[in-house]
Amino acid sequence: MTTQDRQITLYHCPFTRSTGALTLLEELGADYRLHVMNMKAGEQRQPEFLAINPMGKVPTVTHGDAVVTEQVSVYLYLADLYPEAGLAPPMGDPLRGPYLRWMVFYGSCFEPAVVDRVQNREPIHEQRSPYGSFESVMNTLVSQLKAGPWLLGERFSAADVLWGSALNWTTQFGLIPEVPEVRDYINRFLQRPAYQKTLARDAELAAAQQDAKA
Amino acid sequence: MTTQDRQITLYHCPFTRSTGALTLLEELGADYRLHVMNMKAGEQRQPEFLAINPMGKVPTVTHGDAVVTEQVSVYLYLADLYPEAGLAPPMGDPLRGPYLRWMVFYGSCFEPAVVDRVQNREPIHEQRSPYGSFESVMNTLVSQLKAGPWLLGERFSAADVLWGSALNWTTQFGLIPEVPEVRDYINRFLQRPAYQKTLARDAELAAAQQDAKA
Ligand SMILES: N[C@@H](CCC(=O)N[C@@H](CS)C(=O)NCC(=O)O)C(=O)O
Ligand SMILES: N[C@@H](CCC(=O)N[C@@H](CS)C(=O)NCC(=O)O)C(=O)O
Repeated sequence: MTTQDRQITLYHCPFTRSTGALTLLEELGADYRLHVMNMKAGEQRQPEFLAINPMGKVPTVTHGDAVVTEQVSVYLYLADLYPEAGLAPPMGDPLRGPYLRWMVFYGSCFEPAVVDRVQNREPIHEQRSPYGSFESVMNTLVSQLKAGPWLLGERFSAADVLWGSALNWTTQFGLIPEVPEVRDYINRFLQRPAYQKTLARDAELAAAQQDAKA
Repeated sequence: MTTQDRQITLYHCPFTRSTGALTLLEELGADYRLHVMNMKAGEQRQPEFLAINPMGKVPTVTHGDAVVTEQVSVYLYLADLYPEAGLAPPMGDPLRGPYLRWMVFYGSCFEPAVVDRVQNREPIHEQRSPYGSFESVMNTLVSQLKAGPWLLGERFSAADVLWGSALNWTTQFGLIPEVPEVRDYINRFLQRPAYQKTLARDAELAAAQQDAKA
């Protein structure tokens, strides 16, 4: 594929889950166009966008005619689309399996467990839940972070962009306990220039949306 | 990689979520070893297995030193490990993105939405949930199945092994409504010899575990 063929469009709302996807595009040095939407104005619930992603959620990516939704698949897709950035261990690399594991664990276990906790839901027996309990999810994550510095050890990958950005906002909002392993990992992630650049850009985008409203 | 290098081990309990992973191994013509555990006897909660997957969940796969947990990553990994089976559109194929999308949507949206429904939980506003609502998840799925016959259209893929087996057991247990698009899709999936073979094998494995107990 030529660079031209790899140009993707990211549907993005500032300071949401798509901020991590935008960070990944920066980490990858990807060729992309940004379609910015105003979430407070509900643009992601307008027919135009629901026709692309009926869930009404960002991040959503389009690449030619293909639509990719769901953070985890967006990250997997983008990181494999730009292999030269080295953010996705390829098939044949012993880290490919663990890379997929920690990616999927985020969406299938961490996010729903956090929702349960935030909603103060009655815990169910961990054998009756596909994501166990909030505690088992946190323990599984923290024991992986202990090895560090990154989820795959020395190797920084797209999984760290997902987890680094998510742990940053979930701790900021007090949604998960800020245990030392998590704090240290976030601090390492905060050093990434791509994340800093994206946060600054989101601040500008959010301010512009605010001005447009005023 | 030689065939030998690709031999994987599946940790499996009959008639659980690992049944789908076993079906996929059959569909792929993969070289695998089965490590059968007795879930009723709690073998998946013994220290030996928790050392491999601290969540205590199957399917879990090992390949050399690599551990892969979580259905969605297990499927993604295995289907890419046996590209000659053609069950995973490769990068560069316009279906790669949609393939990842429907895989991840299963773990990040469908499963937690089903848990909420089974638990009879108070619905939360779909904008406050990363997987929206049970209704939005079902509508998103059903509108994709409408095109059919498979999730990616004419092309049968590993995503259909995941969804086909999951929709079969979730409807059997009455966890989701059996709308016609879902029923038709399951019926198509039930024709797959690999699934029939695996269900028969699970029946034998379960009977053996029952006998061992008696
Ligand atoms: N399961 C989705 C969750 C995405 C999500 O919840 N995005 C939020 C922003 S943080 C959103 O788009 N909300 C807008 C809405 O629901 O109207 C994923 O992993 O991508
Ligand atoms: N999030 C996991 C869920 C797997 C799961 O819930 N497996 C069940 C069997 S259907 C299990 O192993 N339960 C045993 C236990 O929790 O002790 C995945 O997607 O693989």
